[in-house]
Amino acid sequence: MQMIESGIRDVKHGENVRVITPVNIYGCELRDDVFVGPFVEIQKGCVIGSRTKIQSHTFICENVTVGEDCFIGHSVTFANDLFKHGAPDPSPENWLQIVLGNNVTVGSGATILAAEICSGAVIGAGSVVTKPLLVKGVYAGNPARLLRPL
Amino acid sequence: MQMIESGIRDVKHGENVRVITPVNIYGCELRDDVFVGPFVEIQKGCVIGSRTKIQSHTFICENVTVGEDCFIGHSVTFANDLFKHGAPDPSPENWLQIVLGNNVTVGSGATILAAEICSGAVIGAGSVVTKPLLVKGVYAGNPARLLRPL
Amino acid sequence: MQMIESGIRDVKHGENVRVITPVNIYGCELRDDVFVGPFVEIQKGCVIGSRTKIQSHTFICENVTVGEDCFIGHSVTFANDLFKHGAPDPSPENWLQIVLGNNVTVGSGATILAAEICSGAVIGAGSVVTKPLLVKGVYAGNPARLLRPL
Repeated sequence: MQMIESGIRDVKHGENVRVITPVNIYGCELRDDVFVGPFVEIQKGCVIGSRTKIQSHTFICENVTVGEDCFIGHSVTFANDLFKHGAPDPSPENWLQIVLGNNVTVGSGATILAAEICSGAVIGAGSVVTKPLLVKGVYAGNPARLLRPL
Repeated sequence: MQMIESGIRDVKHGENVRVITPVNIYGCELRDDVFVGPFVEIQKGCVIGSRTKIQSHTFICENVTVGEDCFIGHSVTFANDLFKHGAPDPSPENWLQIVLGNNVTVGSGATILAAEICSGAVIGAGSVVTKPLLVKGVYAGNPARLLRPL
Repeated sequence: MQMIESGIRDVKHGENVRVITPVNIYGCELRDDVFVGPFVEIQKGCVIGSRTKIQSHTFICENVTVGEDCFIGHSVTFANDLFKHGAPDPSPENWLQIVLGNNVTVGSGATILAAEICSGAVIGAGSVVTKPLLVKGVYAGNPARLLRPL
């Protein structure tokens, strides 16, 4: 049995980045003043914008771009494979490229399975986002629906 | 990049408390015979009552009071900020003060976003609790609804 | 306060098993070519079939059998106690014995509270499975429902 220790590898980072360990973060970029809580995994190809907070237990899959001044709550899960052919898709070019704008707020326990979350969107705790959120507003539920525009 | 190791800091505790590390627990109180599983975060201002079990991967936000003999399952997430103004509220006095009674059972994967859970309430796995639960009973769903009184 | 370090204890394993630490895995079996990501707990009595991947943050409760070539996503939570009498059941013989077939795909953030998931089933991200899934197909929602057979 091969045991490989998690950690921080191949991470480009700006000024004043703070990370609470243990984490598993690799092949990505954390810009100025980013905060990352404990028990977080961020995979390769991700970019986390300046002043964004990623709280404990959150998982960010490959190729997610998060804008500036976002709040990603605790135990938030991103997923980019729609399992279109009834199984995990081995071709990364078929996966969603998830982009969050600026000032996005994602409540704790939410699951994000959508390519685009517009700037200023607010997603309630425990929601499951299955479609792009293109209107600035408050969303909640499984699947998440617009509760009110902002 | 500043790396800060998680751990146990400023925790008041009773007799026979057991904790499986790694955890991130700070500024709170764990009373007699409390059990805390691995990969748990408990934030400041929390009080965990005697004989209560907090299972792995659970996140308990600031100022949560959990009664005695409760079972908090795995990957349970508490949230106290309703994002009323469309963003994280920077004023802690506006956050929910979440109180769980005694003998409360919270199923694994549930999200708790409500100020009060009465004694003896049972919350099903994967539920999202968005309103106070004031009647002793079994609740489930997103949002959680009363399935049957107890 | 007693602090007990998580780790890998009493695990029977096949060839070429890879585990990203930290994890808490005990009293179970990991067969050939299994992969386990970081921040995972697997409890006693579990069997994970050959070539199956268990991604980060996932919790597998006691006595779960996962078949071969399965993909268990990130932050997936298994639960085997139905709290039938309004509280955690202290008798393990009353708990579900959860069995997943081969080639099962479980999306990230899903909760599994059902005794059987048939071979080839696909469960969407964020779903809550409350009943056995006996027809090969794609399931999603809370509670999870069949979206289309495969």
